[in-house]
Amino acid sequence: MSVLALAGGVGGARLAAGLARALPPGDLAVAVNTGDDFEHLGLSISPDIDTVVYTLAGLNNPELGWGLASETWAFMAALERLGGETWFRLGDRDLATHVERTRRLAAGETLSAITADFAARLDIAQRIVPMSDDPVRTIVETDEGALAFQDYFVRRQCAPVFRGLRFDGADGARPSAGFAEALADPALEAIVICPSNPLLSLGPILAVPEVRAALAARRVPCIAVSPFIGGQAVKGPAGKIMAELGRDATPAGLLALYDGLVDGLVIDGADAGARADVPLHVTDTLMRGPDDQTRLAREALAFAAGLAR
Amino acid sequence: MSVLALAGGVGGARLAAGLARALPPGDLAVAVNTGDDFEHLGLSISPDIDTVVYTLAGLNNPELGWGLASETWAFMAALERLGGETWFRLGDRDLATHVERTRRLAAGETLSAITADFAARLDIAQRIVPMSDDPVRTIVETDEGALAFQDYFVRRQCAPVFRGLRFDGADGARPSAGFAEALADPALEAIVICPSNPLLSLGPILAVPEVRAALAARRVPCIAVSPFIGGQAVKGPAGKIMAELGRDATPAGLLALYDGLVDGLVIDGADAGARADVPLHVTDTLMRGPDDQTRLAREALAFAAGLAR
Repeated sequence: MSVLALAGGVGGARLAAGLARALPPGDLAVAVNTGDDFEHLGLSISPDIDTVVYTLAGLNNPELGWGLASETWAFMAALERLGGETWFRLGDRDLATHVERTRRLAAGETLSAITADFAARLDIAQRIVPMSDDPVRTIVETDEGALAFQDYFVRRQCAPVFRGLRFDGADGARPSAGFAEALADPALEAIVICPSNPLLSLGPILAVPEVRAALAARRVPCIAVSPFIGGQAVKGPAGKIMAELGRDATPAGLLALYDGLVDGLVIDGADAGARADVPLHVTDTLMRGPDDQTRLAREALAFAAGLAR
Repeated sequence: MSVLALAGGVGGARLAAGLARALPPGDLAVAVNTGDDFEHLGLSISPDIDTVVYTLAGLNNPELGWGLASETWAFMAALERLGGETWFRLGDRDLATHVERTRRLAAGETLSAITADFAARLDIAQRIVPMSDDPVRTIVETDEGALAFQDYFVRRQCAPVFRGLRFDGADGARPSAGFAEALADPALEAIVICPSNPLLSLGPILAVPEVRAALAARRVPCIAVSPFIGGQAVKGPAGKIMAELGRDATPAGLLALYDGLVDGLVIDGADAGARADVPLHVTDTLMRGPDDQTRLAREALAFAAGLAR
């Protein structure tokens, strides 16, 4: 069996961690959004890749939802004293990831190769692949003008009103070799769209033309796990953004966004009355910890397997 | 009164700290070696400038002789886990200096401007100026071939036998604006060559043509404080290197290196019998702490003032 998960940040990483526990190590590939990637302080930062890597390594910070557990902040305090920019918080341990990635990118390595090596060094047996090695940059169009993703998301805390999105570079981007391989794998049995922000985290992945074409031509079930519970996002600004775009943070709103790419949807009991034109699996989708992650992953895999018949 | 000190790393920084306490704040400029500067992990590192800045700010690590007091090493441990290079130790707080300097250099600021701003933010009232804003790189010729300075000094711990030195870029380098201004200051009353490594730390400064010419044409006394005590360097490889070059780690050996640029020499009591063709001031030159630094600085200033008559 081979399963391909598509993930963004925290929610996606949590389900990916569940899938990693539910499947033999070689059977899972996780393709991760890189639209959030940016350059800051001269460093190449890949927030969603790091969240997935740290979470699958068991090193993630569950309180913050990003970064490493037991992190320290001496660098940040010293940077502040020198008058540097501190709106994007970089922990002392986390910083090593960014410095080393930046060095290796400058030396000509791909983000894929660097990510695979970091994952191996952190004893992760699953494949974690960037959606693309070509730069794709999410730009948020707001009532205050176009903002680079992290400017909108972190610096401005999502305060400006969302008007639209574009993914600069996506049209010309190719899926990474590992992602393309996972999509074309003859052993592939299911594709799982994780409960990350459908617009900001999955949007960039689905905007890569070959990815969308491969998903549209899929021969295996593609299921999504809804990030919404009772009309709200579990975490993050997805609910606010859906509302600002005139969309509902509901199963139907999600399916409209995924537009024909999804064969089944896992939704929370709070949304049990939802109407949808694909099969629904209703369960408790809130992942409070590893046990919930593994249970939800197992249910999602069983649901997908049922759709394959 | 205006005093110009020429300094390298730890010994130079210690006397500079003494001079800073011995003089009114506006009266001291410290010109610092940049021949040790290098790029590492994609970061622009200026070891001697940082040692002088940290020491004058009272933030230096007296045990290590470099870096910051109460430093932590979470970054380094994380970098090691990711397979990064760890032979050059970068503390979590110290790293902020390198990341912010690298960012500002890339944005087009000069090393002089960045250094002045860092010094101001760390409440240093004295002027700390790089010897040059043009890149000068110390290359050590050894029995194992030519080595970049930090490769020789840190990675190889000065083990290869020293055959010679060159300062790439020095011929075409200009003194920094602040250094040139201090050299030409009509109020200048003394130049103090601090007890840093004469070959590795002062060598690059003196290799900048306009600096050497200005020192040769000086109208004020230039005195040196010997880094040697009883034929040995207080710290670092100066003694070993002098021996490998067939030179003596003595007052006479030092004067031969400074070749006509020095009007008086401060030496330790252990070398009291030394013969020299310039006036000597014999005292306790070992700087065990701030009190020694200030006392030695006062003695050096008085000695220089006496030579001006």
